[in-house]
Amino acid sequence: MGTFKNKFEARTPKTRRHPMSAELENIDLYVEYWNAANYLSAAQFYLKENPLLRVPLKSEHLKPRIRGHWGSAPGLNLIYVQLNRLIQKTNSQFLFITGPGHCSSAILANLYLEGTYTEFYPEITQDIDGLTLFCRQFSSPGGVPSHVSAMTPGSIHEGGELGYSLLHAFGAAFDHPELIVAAVVSDGEAETGPLAASWQSINFLNPSRDGAVLPFFHVNDGKLSGPTLFGRMEDQDIALYFSGLGYEPFFVCGSDPYKVHTELAQVLDKAYLAIRQIQNEAKEKRLKGKPKWPIIIFRTPDGWTGPKEVDGVRIEGTYRSHRSPLMDVRENPEHLKILESWLKSYHPEKLFDEKGKLREDLQALAPKGTLRMGSNPYANGGGLLVDLALPDFTEYRVPVKQPGSSFSEPTHVLGKYIRDVMRRNPNNFRLFCPDETDSNRLSAVFEVTNRCFVSKTYPEDDHLSPDGRVMEILSEHCCQGWLEGYLLSGGHGLLVSYEAFAMILDSMASQHAKWLKLYREIPWRKPIASLNYLLSSHVWRQEYDGYTHQGPGFIDTLINKKGHVIRIYLPADTNTLLAVMDHCLRSRNYINLVIAEKQPSLDWLDMNEARAHCARGASLWSWASNDRGNPDIILGCAGDVPTLETVAASWLLQKHFPELKVRVVNVVDLMTLSPPAYHPHGMDDINFINLFSASQPVLFAFHGYPRMVHDLVHGRPNPGRFHVRGYQEEGTTTTSFDMVILNKMSRYNLAIDAIKYALKGIPHLRSKAEELIGFFEQKIVEHSTFVRTHLDDMPEIKNWTWSNPAAEQ
Amino acid sequence: MGTFKNKFEARTPKTRRHPMSAELENIDLYVEYWNAANYLSAAQFYLKENPLLRVPLKSEHLKPRIRGHWGSAPGLNLIYVQLNRLIQKTNSQFLFITGPGHCSSAILANLYLEGTYTEFYPEITQDIDGLTLFCRQFSSPGGVPSHVSAMTPGSIHEGGELGYSLLHAFGAAFDHPELIVAAVVSDGEAETGPLAASWQSINFLNPSRDGAVLPFFHVNDGKLSGPTLFGRMEDQDIALYFSGLGYEPFFVCGSDPYKVHTELAQVLDKAYLAIRQIQNEAKEKRLKGKPKWPIIIFRTPDGWTGPKEVDGVRIEGTYRSHRSPLMDVRENPEHLKILESWLKSYHPEKLFDEKGKLREDLQALAPKGTLRMGSNPYANGGGLLVDLALPDFTEYRVPVKQPGSSFSEPTHVLGKYIRDVMRRNPNNFRLFCPDETDSNRLSAVFEVTNRCFVSKTYPEDDHLSPDGRVMEILSEHCCQGWLEGYLLSGGHGLLVSYEAFAMILDSMASQHAKWLKLYREIPWRKPIASLNYLLSSHVWRQEYDGYTHQGPGFIDTLINKKGHVIRIYLPADTNTLLAVMDHCLRSRNYINLVIAEKQPSLDWLDMNEARAHCARGASLWSWASNDRGNPDIILGCAGDVPTLETVAASWLLQKHFPELKVRVVNVVDLMTLSPPAYHPHGMDDINFINLFSASQPVLFAFHGYPRMVHDLVHGRPNPGRFHVRGYQEEGTTTTSFDMVILNKMSRYNLAIDAIKYALKGIPHLRSKAEELIGFFEQKIVEHSTFVRTHLDDMPEIKNWTWSNPAAEQ
Repeated sequence: MGTFKNKFEARTPKTRRHPMSAELENIDLYVEYWNAANYLSAAQFYLKENPLLRVPLKSEHLKPRIRGHWGSAPGLNLIYVQLNRLIQKTNSQFLFITGPGHCSSAILANLYLEGTYTEFYPEITQDIDGLTLFCRQFSSPGGVPSHVSAMTPGSIHEGGELGYSLLHAFGAAFDHPELIVAAVVSDGEAETGPLAASWQSINFLNPSRDGAVLPFFHVNDGKLSGPTLFGRMEDQDIALYFSGLGYEPFFVCGSDPYKVHTELAQVLDKAYLAIRQIQNEAKEKRLKGKPKWPIIIFRTPDGWTGPKEVDGVRIEGTYRSHRSPLMDVRENPEHLKILESWLKSYHPEKLFDEKGKLREDLQALAPKGTLRMGSNPYANGGGLLVDLALPDFTEYRVPVKQPGSSFSEPTHVLGKYIRDVMRRNPNNFRLFCPDETDSNRLSAVFEVTNRCFVSKTYPEDDHLSPDGRVMEILSEHCCQGWLEGYLLSGGHGLLVSYEAFAMILDSMASQHAKWLKLYREIPWRKPIASLNYLLSSHVWRQEYDGYTHQGPGFIDTLINKKGHVIRIYLPADTNTLLAVMDHCLRSRNYINLVIAEKQPSLDWLDMNEARAHCARGASLWSWASNDRGNPDIILGCAGDVPTLETVAASWLLQKHFPELKVRVVNVVDLMTLSPPAYHPHGMDDINFINLFSASQPVLFAFHGYPRMVHDLVHGRPNPGRFHVRGYQEEGTTTTSFDMVILNKMSRYNLAIDAIKYALKGIPHLRSKAEELIGFFEQKIVEHSTFVRTHLDDMPEIKNWTWSNPAAEQ
Repeated sequence: MGTFKNKFEARTPKTRRHPMSAELENIDLYVEYWNAANYLSAAQFYLKENPLLRVPLKSEHLKPRIRGHWGSAPGLNLIYVQLNRLIQKTNSQFLFITGPGHCSSAILANLYLEGTYTEFYPEITQDIDGLTLFCRQFSSPGGVPSHVSAMTPGSIHEGGELGYSLLHAFGAAFDHPELIVAAVVSDGEAETGPLAASWQSINFLNPSRDGAVLPFFHVNDGKLSGPTLFGRMEDQDIALYFSGLGYEPFFVCGSDPYKVHTELAQVLDKAYLAIRQIQNEAKEKRLKGKPKWPIIIFRTPDGWTGPKEVDGVRIEGTYRSHRSPLMDVRENPEHLKILESWLKSYHPEKLFDEKGKLREDLQALAPKGTLRMGSNPYANGGGLLVDLALPDFTEYRVPVKQPGSSFSEPTHVLGKYIRDVMRRNPNNFRLFCPDETDSNRLSAVFEVTNRCFVSKTYPEDDHLSPDGRVMEILSEHCCQGWLEGYLLSGGHGLLVSYEAFAMILDSMASQHAKWLKLYREIPWRKPIASLNYLLSSHVWRQEYDGYTHQGPGFIDTLINKKGHVIRIYLPADTNTLLAVMDHCLRSRNYINLVIAEKQPSLDWLDMNEARAHCARGASLWSWASNDRGNPDIILGCAGDVPTLETVAASWLLQKHFPELKVRVVNVVDLMTLSPPAYHPHGMDDINFINLFSASQPVLFAFHGYPRMVHDLVHGRPNPGRFHVRGYQEEGTTTTSFDMVILNKMSRYNLAIDAIKYALKGIPHLRSKAEELIGFFEQKIVEHSTFVRTHLDDMPEIKNWTWSNPAAEQ
């Protein structure tokens, strides 16, 4: 072992190989087309002029900054070219997912050759001038990035952060029965957690309803600076691994281009037939159990066809091909020679005509129209998007005769609305959830659908079937990845999770926000449905689960993203939640975050008030205030539990301290607090002063970490008067009220602090103020003792409702 | 299929089963011990009095809030009890990792029965009173949480957020050859990405150097509200999956307690022998290739031995056992009866003596002393911690004759220091990195060690061997999980990553911060080494990788954690980085975040200045200032690129606008900006005013998202005068200087904004100010045009160094 040939040839077990045959026509032409793709993939790294080497290569033709990733490019090109052949043969719709990161030069090369790139970017013409621009722009300032991005036609997957290619592929296949998603997964990416989990996605792919995913596991044994784990596994072990997962593995391995082209063509034909057979059997209801979907293990050398050796060090077939194999070509004449002979080894002079256009017989190898993978309509899903048929959300309202006198379970009520959304939209809406749909009280959806499960079921299972539209897997990564793929290919959806574990998605959500930011700027990208999060079982309600389940940090992640991409809603009650969710489901190109309670909670607003409140984003709640336009203290709040404690604090103050003028302001759309320059929802200073005055102290109770509100009010008049309470990382398995005590945000803490901050303005009331502070401090002690003795909250907390505080005095 | 018996009995392939034998003695006693553990596991959910049911069970004996997770408890108990037997038999050191979340009642039951719990918590005595307290405290306010936590003796793994059990197990096994880590992984957790990736950890476990990990894959087919993916896989497919990964799977399946006890005992003996054989062969150098480590697939019913049926619905053997199988026992007399007969089915009256202590013959089944898993020394790793033998970091300093006149590569220099740390500490320090050690320029470490790899290697591989101490896998999750396990069991380490992809770890880092917060409060927990992050390839330097690789959000995640747990350092140059890292490696019980540059960068401070600067955390850089105690504008900065732009802006201003008095303040320890009440490093107002004055405008250039600085200065005098520049989510594959232009933080932008903010204080200079603003605005246009035309930065940027600005005028 150890020599190149051995590494890629000898270890292919014969039983898994498909015999050579003479079936394939035009093999020479496909290899030539591949050479053209390889040539352009490399040329983009280096050339700012002389793109077809019509004159001898000189230093001045080279870019000042050499950038590019070569390792997986030739393999990707070969797969792309052979898929073109299959598409031509079968007239099938294929979507291409580029798992290997940074290999966009390969994809761009293919898009250019098939003509789609010129259609989307007419300045990149099919001639020498176009080719010059095409090469210049790659990884250059003001140009195109080194990985596939929203700017790349035919793409829904960026591949900058690795791990999500297969998830995006499955998401795009859901509900698109005519589509086959060809997903190239690299052996580097396969080491990540999300990718390792995503092989299980076949347990959720229904062959009679969904499209197919054809994974290409591209094992070239090279990542950034070493070999890969799968690269050093025997074929036999890889076969066992995928067989155990339920796939039928096909191997294509080698380093002889003609042989690999031929074998992949043959294997692709077989895999295609296997897919169609599974789908036909499923449609005819002849399929028993989970089908064995094909997977292609594609083992070719890292940096294949690149320089074999540079300065006596092996390059081709090692991780050293990962980036550009030659870096100092501008300064090192010997390396420049190697570069020139490498590029010339593809014989560009034979592949392109005089004008610089691909030879006509080669052009004929690419599919036509929207069958070209760069023009796949599912890669621009906004074009396929159908507006949801939404029920009238006001019909799900809870009656609210007076504020704070009745209880309802917000997400339970919302569940009925979501149920009817799912009923009315049976083909383009799904709910994604890490095993918590019931726990988050959305169980009503199971009146109209099931949990999707394409594996063994038993009669006693609860709403489990292949036709389900609730996608439950205990992996936040899978839920997010599937949903992203589903949205980008034209679907609608909702991701429901425990609040704390949304932080598992911090990075994925950030990457989707980055994608959306670019997406919105590209004229040919059609608006897609927003990515909607509903987080429940939140930080303040962890009676069961405790400290590990308390984490409001997802807000902090989203809020840093571009203002025109993110929206954050903290509805305080059931009717407000309904109004917010309706708004989110109608929106486009956003990430909407909604955080809501699942436990029985007081209702504050009737539906008319809730709608008006949501339209404003933040309102003065006059029924909870006694300030008559002139508050001594303003109690701001955002989030359901903070609102409860704030209103109760106002009630306590009005009851015990009627001389103090208290105003309650509730914020449902968090970004209204932001200056308008930072977020389009930000209110102007006039409205801000109308709510929060220009000078009076504000005690703000916030759902999450307090620091965020400090930032949001930065730049407003007198920001130092804002005193924020929120989650201080104090928690355990305890009652909800004990949680607000521990974090100093209880009604008693708020009442004490409100008096302290107001005192400067009402010095004549000092003695009463001090007496009351003592009274409320005593209440806190009393509570802490009671809850630890009786293992439960005091009845005065559990049974508290709003009533006229003046009458209570 | 579908009946209970079929589900767990019929599908066990005969070839994988180990034949019954009469070898096992005392099987009845082990089953009784197990009954005691099961009894206590359930009793903790319900009982606040009458813990051994010595009087008929009544509603008033019950807790007001019934809390608990039952599903996996009986399986965990059986594994624990049989491990006790193996430990007694072999005198081996086993560490127990509880993967199934929330099942702490099972672990607590075993700790109580083996006596360790009483040793750590003497008030929980071995009698009725102790048992009463023991049951009362569970999931109660002021008590212990529903999952294993830092409060739990013998534990290093919380299991609140799922996915990391196996990673913690491997981390604890590294460098502890005498240890076997028994890691119970649930089939629910196995659906997560991090867990799916972590099976590959055997490629990094060196049997001649490390301990062993014995995974128990606990397949009980139940998660929160449905079956599991692995639960519905055939044994044969599970066997293929693990065989492909390189394990030797052993199956123990069933629902007959005697049979399962017997079989697990036999399989444990075999697995133990297999482990010892692998280790012996490795030590004797007879081992070829990657060993086939045993894994035990443990298939028993969810909620085993619990209520079979409640209200006509099947409970035992379904996901409905996940939480407490009976919830309304206080109100429903029929359910109370079911509870009583369930608890009595374990016959507590036969298991505990009159005082309430476990029967003596059962006590004898538990190991003694530190062989008890609750007393395992590796679970309190601080006790095993050996201080690092650290080289003198000042010896690695770069010479700095005058500020800003020479270049060095900070992480490259740091690499030499880390190399020598690794050389001097060959058994208790490791570097963890997602395939980026070279890319982040720490290559010097390969002079003394290798990349750890226990799989196939080739002669041309680069520093790859089983003895390596650089742990490279393309999974941030694996790196973090291993490191956490390594630290908690007494090791030291450093995690090196690209900055953007640290966000993949947001949630794991948050959970570790939570663990540390509690850990610090527990008297018997000994301090452990801090978790050190070095993030490079940061947001401002992505010439290769572009927008997806730009994300400074990890700072935002950490900063919300408890002040006594987190530290954030932004060294501006090489010498400062060395001083910071030395400090971090000496610290205990923290999470230290260090963000540093890998590209050639200007040196600002010589080593003495760097040390003094780090000791203060923030300093006035007088050589870069001309304010003489009376600044018109203060330029604050934190982070290497912001410092470069700030110093250059000061230089531009001093050169072109000498009348303007500019002060430069650099912050290396970000938390010094915080008020001392929030963070122990926070400087008091006197020091703050010394640096930033009380009233003059401050223009602050920050490495990350600007909003954080708004919060940090909240509460300081006149916070509205702070104007923060930082990353605004603008980026692509471009030059570093183009990045600061795009995000409006370039020296030209800073100079313009400094003049604008200062102008109010210097109205007499308005016309010169306006002229200069125009000049700098022109510079920005000029740059943008140049970089897009020449595909590179202007020489005046690339070659800029600090020199006396007065001389330049």
